[in-house]
Amino acid sequence: MSEGNKAVKLWGGRFTGKTDPIMEKFNSSLSYDKTMWKEDIFGSQQYAQALQRCGILTQEEADIIVGGLEKVKEEWANGTFIIQEGDEDIHTANERRLTEIIGKVGGKLHTGRSRNDQVVTDVRLWLRQAINGLRGDLANIIFTAADKAERFNHILQAGYTHLQPAQVVRYSHWLMSYIVPLLRDLERLTQVRQRVNICPLGSGALAGHPFGLDRKGLAANLGFDDISLNSLDATSDRDFIVETMNWASLLMVHLSQFAEDLIITNLQQGVKMADAYCTGSSLMPQKKNPDALELLRGKTGRVIGNATGFLCTLKGLPRAYNKDLQEDKEPLFDTISTVKDCLLITLGIISTMEPVEEKLKLRLVPEMLATDIAEYLVRKGVPFRETHHIAGDYLH
Amino acid sequence: MSEGNKAVKLWGGRFTGKTDPIMEKFNSSLSYDKTMWKEDIFGSQQYAQALQRCGILTQEEADIIVGGLEKVKEEWANGTFIIQEGDEDIHTANERRLTEIIGKVGGKLHTGRSRNDQVVTDVRLWLRQAINGLRGDLANIIFTAADKAERFNHILQAGYTHLQPAQVVRYSHWLMSYIVPLLRDLERLTQVRQRVNICPLGSGALAGHPFGLDRKGLAANLGFDDISLNSLDATSDRDFIVETMNWASLLMVHLSQFAEDLIITNLQQGVKMADAYCTGSSLMPQKKNPDALELLRGKTGRVIGNATGFLCTLKGLPRAYNKDLQEDKEPLFDTISTVKDCLLITLGIISTMEPVEEKLKLRLVPEMLATDIAEYLVRKGVPFRETHHIAGDYLH
Amino acid sequence: MSEGNKAVKLWGGRFTGKTDPIMEKFNSSLSYDKTMWKEDIFGSQQYAQALQRCGILTQEEADIIVGGLEKVKEEWANGTFIIQEGDEDIHTANERRLTEIIGKVGGKLHTGRSRNDQVVTDVRLWLRQAINGLRGDLANIIFTAADKAERFNHILQAGYTHLQPAQVVRYSHWLMSYIVPLLRDLERLTQVRQRVNICPLGSGALAGHPFGLDRKGLAANLGFDDISLNSLDATSDRDFIVETMNWASLLMVHLSQFAEDLIITNLQQGVKMADAYCTGSSLMPQKKNPDALELLRGKTGRVIGNATGFLCTLKGLPRAYNKDLQEDKEPLFDTISTVKDCLLITLGIISTMEPVEEKLKLRLVPEMLATDIAEYLVRKGVPFRETHHIAGDYLH
Amino acid sequence: MSEGNKAVKLWGGRFTGKTDPIMEKFNSSLSYDKTMWKEDIFGSQQYAQALQRCGILTQEEADIIVGGLEKVKEEWANGTFIIQEGDEDIHTANERRLTEIIGKVGGKLHTGRSRNDQVVTDVRLWLRQAINGLRGDLANIIFTAADKAERFNHILQAGYTHLQPAQVVRYSHWLMSYIVPLLRDLERLTQVRQRVNICPLGSGALAGHPFGLDRKGLAANLGFDDISLNSLDATSDRDFIVETMNWASLLMVHLSQFAEDLIITNLQQGVKMADAYCTGSSLMPQKKNPDALELLRGKTGRVIGNATGFLCTLKGLPRAYNKDLQEDKEPLFDTISTVKDCLLITLGIISTMEPVEEKLKLRLVPEMLATDIAEYLVRKGVPFRETHHIAGDYLH
Repeated sequence: MSEGNKAVKLWGGRFTGKTDPIMEKFNSSLSYDKTMWKEDIFGSQQYAQALQRCGILTQEEADIIVGGLEKVKEEWANGTFIIQEGDEDIHTANERRLTEIIGKVGGKLHTGRSRNDQVVTDVRLWLRQAINGLRGDLANIIFTAADKAERFNHILQAGYTHLQPAQVVRYSHWLMSYIVPLLRDLERLTQVRQRVNICPLGSGALAGHPFGLDRKGLAANLGFDDISLNSLDATSDRDFIVETMNWASLLMVHLSQFAEDLIITNLQQGVKMADAYCTGSSLMPQKKNPDALELLRGKTGRVIGNATGFLCTLKGLPRAYNKDLQEDKEPLFDTISTVKDCLLITLGIISTMEPVEEKLKLRLVPEMLATDIAEYLVRKGVPFRETHHIAGDYLH
Repeated sequence: MSEGNKAVKLWGGRFTGKTDPIMEKFNSSLSYDKTMWKEDIFGSQQYAQALQRCGILTQEEADIIVGGLEKVKEEWANGTFIIQEGDEDIHTANERRLTEIIGKVGGKLHTGRSRNDQVVTDVRLWLRQAINGLRGDLANIIFTAADKAERFNHILQAGYTHLQPAQVVRYSHWLMSYIVPLLRDLERLTQVRQRVNICPLGSGALAGHPFGLDRKGLAANLGFDDISLNSLDATSDRDFIVETMNWASLLMVHLSQFAEDLIITNLQQGVKMADAYCTGSSLMPQKKNPDALELLRGKTGRVIGNATGFLCTLKGLPRAYNKDLQEDKEPLFDTISTVKDCLLITLGIISTMEPVEEKLKLRLVPEMLATDIAEYLVRKGVPFRETHHIAGDYLH
Repeated sequence: MSEGNKAVKLWGGRFTGKTDPIMEKFNSSLSYDKTMWKEDIFGSQQYAQALQRCGILTQEEADIIVGGLEKVKEEWANGTFIIQEGDEDIHTANERRLTEIIGKVGGKLHTGRSRNDQVVTDVRLWLRQAINGLRGDLANIIFTAADKAERFNHILQAGYTHLQPAQVVRYSHWLMSYIVPLLRDLERLTQVRQRVNICPLGSGALAGHPFGLDRKGLAANLGFDDISLNSLDATSDRDFIVETMNWASLLMVHLSQFAEDLIITNLQQGVKMADAYCTGSSLMPQKKNPDALELLRGKTGRVIGNATGFLCTLKGLPRAYNKDLQEDKEPLFDTISTVKDCLLITLGIISTMEPVEEKLKLRLVPEMLATDIAEYLVRKGVPFRETHHIAGDYLH
Repeated sequence: MSEGNKAVKLWGGRFTGKTDPIMEKFNSSLSYDKTMWKEDIFGSQQYAQALQRCGILTQEEADIIVGGLEKVKEEWANGTFIIQEGDEDIHTANERRLTEIIGKVGGKLHTGRSRNDQVVTDVRLWLRQAINGLRGDLANIIFTAADKAERFNHILQAGYTHLQPAQVVRYSHWLMSYIVPLLRDLERLTQVRQRVNICPLGSGALAGHPFGLDRKGLAANLGFDDISLNSLDATSDRDFIVETMNWASLLMVHLSQFAEDLIITNLQQGVKMADAYCTGSSLMPQKKNPDALELLRGKTGRVIGNATGFLCTLKGLPRAYNKDLQEDKEPLFDTISTVKDCLLITLGIISTMEPVEEKLKLRLVPEMLATDIAEYLVRKGVPFRETHHIAGDYLH
């Protein structure tokens, strides 16, 4: 890269025309993809070593590159990395800085690699890490709720259908009915992770790697479970992002249902919420609003919207990489961040909320025994369909 | 059920008011849930036997019920089942008919069961079967495409990124790039099936079964892999439907991408489509329109819409059953039917289409060797970033 | 059309290959587009007369065609129209039947017309009529609710924010808060209708009409307000369908909010619902479930899904007609039918529901006067922000 | 507000418990709603004067408040406004700062106002301004395209249906087929603006204004066309946001279709795109990728996702304000910003792109005259349906 013009694009071999300044903004992804600085550097370091193993870099060149990247990494970690005009994405920024530090040999790092396989490798590494965190958060909620269920196992409450009191259930039964879906979410997330943790690096721009790269070894060094099977697919495959966002949509639906039920229960003062998850009203001092629950419910739309929108973006895209795919990262990052916060809030709510036994008792009305009367009659030999009519008459 | 008034609702123990006729239509689901007539009868037969095993029915009663249901089944199979006014869903219809055939003892079948656990059992049985079929369809496509890829493995074509010719790839490489996603779809569907094949029967309306039903035995007899864990969750859980529809959305995205690519390739006459999958124009006789491909692409929106809409329906629903959940079946049935047709069409297209080698060759332009030139220079020791500029200059 | 083979496709001039039977089903739209039989015939009758006016048909030919179409119309009206194999859509079916009735001259009707402009003319005529009906339904609800609001104007109830009682409001104020959005919906629908009622006929397949058709006269005879401006756009424009479905999504959101509020109010027995809009439970005789309200709420997802899905279908379709556009009718018809039912149900609910004053009073708790205390203090000159703290202390 | 504790919440009259730090983040909206700093101050200034006119503030107090707000405004304009911990939204931040500047009298500003009516007033003011800008952008595109159409009116090209060449059309006809939808978008946006420009201020938290505020005068001073009709509705109504986002979805669909068509045309080199809207490839120097077009197409999903997600958030929310509504701003702001950029890029593309006559001519193949042959035969008296067969035979 010529000195004195650090802003030259990496693909600067051909164009002479000026870029529209709005186009610069439109095209740039650095503002959000810098989140992946660590993964980009890790991926490049391992790639340099793989290039060495297949003879494209000498050991010395590889060492210089790996060392230079280590310095770039330190700058990010210390907050001293300075973004330059022309750094249109994290890959460009890191390579530009690397070349500043180690000179011309930096230009060998990208050999046989394309931003097409590089970016999707970074996203997979980043997402794998994020999923690990979410699995921990889910497990925390599950264990915490199970403890609470055990502790309050003696408390009875009304069980509802159609928001009408129906039969008596335990508080623990009700609480765990919101945890069982999270068990499924955890199972699903574990299965999604299998498909996230696949290495596309070595797919080039679309047609594969020309220098005999040991893809399996590289994948192993990057902690991936396997390599991708087809380079045209690997560079355009965003299934793992769709899967994650679909997963998140269903999780959020579960949290929204929990929130709704609790808002209604809380409204009737059957469960005491910690002040930490409520706020007051600027006009009505008596209010204690369950804002945390309303946000859990409200953010469900956002996460569903992210998933739906990205499916729409993918519809009808032909092989292989198209720039439309740049639209994958913002919804993914927003979804992960939203879900993360929502799980932590949910954990906080479950950790602190307490059933109010005497209030819950107030709702245990005699009509709720209709099913029990019917069942008593069944035990006496009356056909169930008749018991139903008898119990109905009896109670009115 | 009183004679002379076969239309009395099963829940008729209380109401005296008249139902709004539009409400009848609004509330009724028989027009679409009759699809599950076989599963409803199978579920009831097994349920009757389980009731016998826990002492609620005598062996004789159970035999009468199972035999009566067998007759109802024959009527459906022969097309002689007559729907009556008041048959608001398949469960009501079957039980009404059963009681007509075997009399009062039919009223014992529903003991301890609710439509809430009955309906979701039926849907799971139905969907399990449908998924088995879809897995076969996917496997057919995969094997057929693999054969075609092998047969045409020698043919070269332009590989594209950004719909610009980029590098030379094999036709087989391109074709298989659309099959690898289907392999993932198959893997995902197998995982979804695990969560479909869970038995909720025995959960009652919301609070479980009061008569000591052997749920594990019943589940095994129904071919389920396991039982559901929490009755409040089991009667309101529609995760397995969301998962199936999310799965279908991603599958359809894959088919839409294949369709788009083929429409563009076909437009340029690189691939010959069988007449069976094209139609003509009523105004322009020279046209041969790839209607099948356009419908594959167009139906993607429909399937995504079904999934998104149902997620929205589920948002914020509290425990346990709410009538909103009735909205699960139409989008699910439509999705399964659409996906089924689309897979069969895809299979037909792949079975019959052929690459036109001489047309594909026309697009193998010299500029596509730029990457090869760059790679040649790399082998001579030039840093990749410089080769890029050199190759760019060389070709212009 | 050759005798003895009524199933020959209208575009049969070229193909020799057989069509895949699944493809027939996939391609056919008659099962749902026959809904527009009346509009299709009306459009063709007017088109024949327009062809006569520009000299393509003689008066006698035009009369024969119009008369023949009148007979086809009677068959549909009487239920005697017999669908034949090969009638792939309503346009094909009507023209096939016309030619059977009047012979060879029927083949002149389609001159200068394409299914591309014909179908979208039919849909616009059909939708215009449907919108007229929906406007009447909305007006009915608005007037009925206004009457009810006046009648129950003296009743007070708790006004909520965050589902917490906040301040005292009138029942009428609450009820009308759900009617004001419907006023906006009515205004919006009127504006949508303007863009629905535009005539695309005369646009041909894509390139316009070659025989000097008087498009303005034809549009006026069809009751359209104006003609479309660009034939490439006119044959592929589905904005009016998107607008209608987006309109419906927002309307349904309003109904879902009304339903939710009423389910919660009803749960607390502040409002009495007519039995006609509730159903009982098959297991719990004491239950009176607000099924109508839950379906209003649940069907919101369906209508949103239809709109979202179709936007996704339209994304990235190039000019002009593509078969993907066939996917417009099913979601549109389903949306209109769903919305129609939901409005009628809403009208029934509002017509019959009554506030229960003594129950509503129970919720008028002293804490709800906090705002009034604060306002009293403001009138005494205390800065509002301080009154807030004082009132908060006072009430606890 | 007590000195030494600037972080006390405005609704601090009741709570003693600590807030979860994640909850602070979850609850805070300042990071995005500060975009509306100008509108928030303008709204407050006019509100202070309205309070003076109804006797709640003296003239002197009103002047002090207006003047103090002017200083806050200058700080934002100069970039010197310092955000404090505890500034959870733009309203809190501005009022906190105002009170620091003018002291205790600042606490009178919020009299009779709630954040519920304040926030939605701010959003409406902000959106009105944004819509004004978008209308200008649309007009710019329309006029620019009309000029281009006139300039290149002589150029002929293939018109397509089903991506198959169909009939000859003018380049200008093709270009304007993408502009006519924008005319509709402009008409729709003008109608949306009518419903955006309604004043909700004076609705309080939910129950209206207690001090005889002149709402019509206040609305006029804020430039609104009218006042809202029902305070419960006014504080929870987000129709205008849904309408704007639905509007944007359809606009983006239009841009996606234009982009797709151009990508395919550009691929075939019929239209020359300015370098400013393309980028190169890091691996393949010969490529000139239409990134701008792909982003126009790709961002369509994002905008559709925003709209769909927010509809889902609104589904089933009861009266009146619920915190879920906080989820309105991020998708709205993102949609407006995305649409703004996309319109500017579209303007740039249309301004600079040029048809390549000799390339476009290459696609004018004889088969495209089939319709003309058929029309010739029609003029000779052959029924159209027969001409179709004749022309089909003739050309093959």
